[in-house]
Amino acid sequence: MYVILVYDISTEGNGAKVLRHVFKTSKKYLTNVQKSVFEGEITPALLEQLRLELNQFIRSDLDSVVVFSSRQEKWLEKSFWGMEDDKTSNFF
Amino acid sequence: MYVILVYDISTEGNGAKVLRHVFKTSKKYLTNVQKSVFEGEITPALLEQLRLELNQFIRSDLDSVVVFSSRQEKWLEKSFWGMEDDKTSNFF
Repeated sequence: MYVILVYDISTEGNGAKVLRHVFKTSKKYLTNVQKSVFEGEITPALLEQLRLELNQFIRSDLDSVVVFSSRQEKWLEKSFWGMEDDKTSNFF
Repeated sequence: MYVILVYDISTEGNGAKVLRHVFKTSKKYLTNVQKSVFEGEITPALLEQLRLELNQFIRSDLDSVVVFSSRQEKWLEKSFWGMEDDKTSNFF
């Protein structure tokens, strides 16, 4: 399956640390598209593993993660408006 | 078509003002899902109108907007991990 994962981590409390953990964990499974946006092909089992890993950091009263999933990547087109910081592009 | 729009507005300079404009403009066309995430059904013509409106505010060297589009909403499943702040839900 193909997923887009977007998180919103509150800066309250140890937010900066939570953000680092969430970023690093997401990057193990998916590709970084924009500061807090990841996308990629992933199996349901690995997506569940990612969810469990993120659950260790996410504060259910402060932070939010939303995951959009599609059975196939070809159903999704991606375009950038403004600065393109697509980490998946190979321009140097 | 169905789109997911995610923006990342730099706090540099008049970032706060840009953010307010981008939020308000996006909200005219789409539904707010998470702080900087919008989604919704939109025609290609209205999406182009939204792009042009946002272009008035977005600083091409600082801000980034990414738009994922799908021909049909049913191809996308949405789930929340952590705090669910889905503005589309009707719970009181």
